[in-house]
Amino acid sequence: MVYLTRKAEFSASHFYHNDEFTAEENQRIFGKCNNPNGHGHNYTLEVTVKGQVDQRSGFVVDLKQLKDVMNREVIEAMDHRHLNKEVAEFRDRIPTTENLAISIWNRLKPKLQVAELHRVRVYETPDLFVDFYGEE
Amino acid sequence: MVYLTRKAEFSASHFYHNDEFTAEENQRIFGKCNNPNGHGHNYTLEVTVKGQVDQRSGFVVDLKQLKDVMNREVIEAMDHRHLNKEVAEFRDRIPTTENLAISIWNRLKPKLQVAELHRVRVYETPDLFVDFYGEE
Amino acid sequence: MVYLTRKAEFSASHFYHNDEFTAEENQRIFGKCNNPNGHGHNYTLEVTVKGQVDQRSGFVVDLKQLKDVMNREVIEAMDHRHLNKEVAEFRDRIPTTENLAISIWNRLKPKLQVAELHRVRVYETPDLFVDFYGEE
Amino acid sequence: MVYLTRKAEFSASHFYHNDEFTAEENQRIFGKCNNPNGHGHNYTLEVTVKGQVDQRSGFVVDLKQLKDVMNREVIEAMDHRHLNKEVAEFRDRIPTTENLAISIWNRLKPKLQVAELHRVRVYETPDLFVDFYGEE
Amino acid sequence: MVYLTRKAEFSASHFYHNDEFTAEENQRIFGKCNNPNGHGHNYTLEVTVKGQVDQRSGFVVDLKQLKDVMNREVIEAMDHRHLNKEVAEFRDRIPTTENLAISIWNRLKPKLQVAELHRVRVYETPDLFVDFYGEE
Amino acid sequence: MVYLTRKAEFSASHFYHNDEFTAEENQRIFGKCNNPNGHGHNYTLEVTVKGQVDQRSGFVVDLKQLKDVMNREVIEAMDHRHLNKEVAEFRDRIPTTENLAISIWNRLKPKLQVAELHRVRVYETPDLFVDFYGEE
Repeated sequence: MVYLTRKAEFSASHFYHNDEFTAEENQRIFGKCNNPNGHGHNYTLEVTVKGQVDQRSGFVVDLKQLKDVMNREVIEAMDHRHLNKEVAEFRDRIPTTENLAISIWNRLKPKLQVAELHRVRVYETPDLFVDFYGEE
Repeated sequence: MVYLTRKAEFSASHFYHNDEFTAEENQRIFGKCNNPNGHGHNYTLEVTVKGQVDQRSGFVVDLKQLKDVMNREVIEAMDHRHLNKEVAEFRDRIPTTENLAISIWNRLKPKLQVAELHRVRVYETPDLFVDFYGEE
Repeated sequence: MVYLTRKAEFSASHFYHNDEFTAEENQRIFGKCNNPNGHGHNYTLEVTVKGQVDQRSGFVVDLKQLKDVMNREVIEAMDHRHLNKEVAEFRDRIPTTENLAISIWNRLKPKLQVAELHRVRVYETPDLFVDFYGEE
Repeated sequence: MVYLTRKAEFSASHFYHNDEFTAEENQRIFGKCNNPNGHGHNYTLEVTVKGQVDQRSGFVVDLKQLKDVMNREVIEAMDHRHLNKEVAEFRDRIPTTENLAISIWNRLKPKLQVAELHRVRVYETPDLFVDFYGEE
Repeated sequence: MVYLTRKAEFSASHFYHNDEFTAEENQRIFGKCNNPNGHGHNYTLEVTVKGQVDQRSGFVVDLKQLKDVMNREVIEAMDHRHLNKEVAEFRDRIPTTENLAISIWNRLKPKLQVAELHRVRVYETPDLFVDFYGEE
Repeated sequence: MVYLTRKAEFSASHFYHNDEFTAEENQRIFGKCNNPNGHGHNYTLEVTVKGQVDQRSGFVVDLKQLKDVMNREVIEAMDHRHLNKEVAEFRDRIPTTENLAISIWNRLKPKLQVAELHRVRVYETPDLFVDFYGEE
């Protein structure tokens, strides 16, 4: 059993706002992330899959297929997008790094074959990242 | 004569659009950067100053003053902002990395004392950066 | 359940010496780290907390509170300090990276609320780091 | 119980080919990695050991011994080598990053004393890495 | 006048050998790089161009064209290749990082339009790099 | 003419103090760097040499000689040392990063042969570095 991780990057903008909060609550809880003009990030995504090594190829997963799934399900959907306005699941969920990791897990999980999804890590900045393992 | 460089980071969103271009030109020239919803980046800024080393302090510049000027003139003005909508000089200039470097030079140049501004470097992503030395 | 990690940096000096060892043992076991003048490092700290995502805020932890706790309990106590001479627990424990990770865990554990401390990682250099999960 | 990780780097070349595959299969499965002239990488190796902290030294493992074992068992055997031609276990196993991680585990496991081998991580590029924990 | 730099990566293998040297000289001068089986690297390439910012686009160079030229002239020619055996100019020149930087300059110089080539930087490892500015 | 740069790292401690300043001036000018117990850093050193490429070897400088000079003149003298107490030139000069870069230039300049010293860069942290080119 080995674990293989592939990185990719995408750029997106977002802002944090909950209609159920008062303006004062939104400001206190979200600070300058509440600015409705939005701000952006270069996100780094790490996708880890696990499985047995195929003895004939030496691979745990077809790297090209993994790259294609990551590109189609995540990069094309999110790169150079405004997460709140252009990515369906963030119309009514706040696009925090936590929710972004869960969203990416849900997008990738049904599309991966052979190897099993183990972890999704999302860096919002080099100093802040979130891991999701599919745990309830 | 020594050169001292200090890094800082900020997050912002932007998009590229020139009203004088046709829609087709905007799309061809700017590609997915033309999306009016904007997208974002973690920018890294490197500011280099040069000067003689003060024999009494061993410093070429007061680091705290340099940090304060960078924070006040650049970080506070641009971090968590939408460059097109919230930074004055980009209302009628396209906020490319090239123009961002020039803009930051113009903001810092008149505020630095003792040490002389030598170079402004702006990374849009880890793989793309622009340098400006104040050359016409 | 998600895991969120925040990085911070601090600079400190230390040396390794055990009064119960002979001079020869101190030299053999600690090598040039035994130099009583001390030497220093830029430490990088990664603090990982885990918890459920709050559905209203999208956060697993208030990032500002996490930053404040890390600053107050670790950075202010250790940054620009001599660990052997100025940090209480290292008066009679050797400030190795292993002991530093355990010490930082013990400082943070009682101060974190809502989210649970999961891991403390300390990089002494980019090529050497220690993880502590609170395991006996 | 703490976990200590040490990094090292080595440069090697390899190519992917399975004699049991047809030429077409080798090309389809391995792509440009099938080029028999080989190509190379700067590999980064991370070795993690775990154990109790020795109360007298503050160490979980003698860092010099760990470095010596890594150098002797891995770096000297693989650095500036052609993996297919010069490293025994890859004469009949494809030197993918997956197999390289398993090979390094098998080389280090019997040589480590006091501290227990926990994980071998191998980066083929900054964007692709494999972890092996000795799991069947 | 601004300077824009774009990074790219490629993997290649090589070895160092001069037929005019004796075996002993080759070994003494090139050390383990003289191994005829070759060894490899992940090279990082930085290409810097300079020019005036186009007032209408805000660009100093069309980034897509720059990327295409770098891909066609360098990456496709060198990635996953054995430099000595598969890249024409290294049949009779030693593929040191110095010569690689000069070779890449010569490949790019005649293909760049509008913006002028300013510098080619090649990293052989994160700790060793060469710059070439086209100076005799 | 090519420029070759080699990196190395060393760890040291220091503090900033000028006997000619009052206690209040030392505190105001040097802040927490004035703490007489000292604090430390992992310094990164980049040494750049320039010269013609030797047509027979493909090298601008013998890398082993360059490494040996850097080790002997800088790393052995400063690694795991207290700069104020153990490095001669800092007994009466404040070991700022500026002065450290000048000191390293003066140590290396007379020892390099064939290739000419072009630049010394010293990173005190990843966010702060100083360049010295030997300019008065």
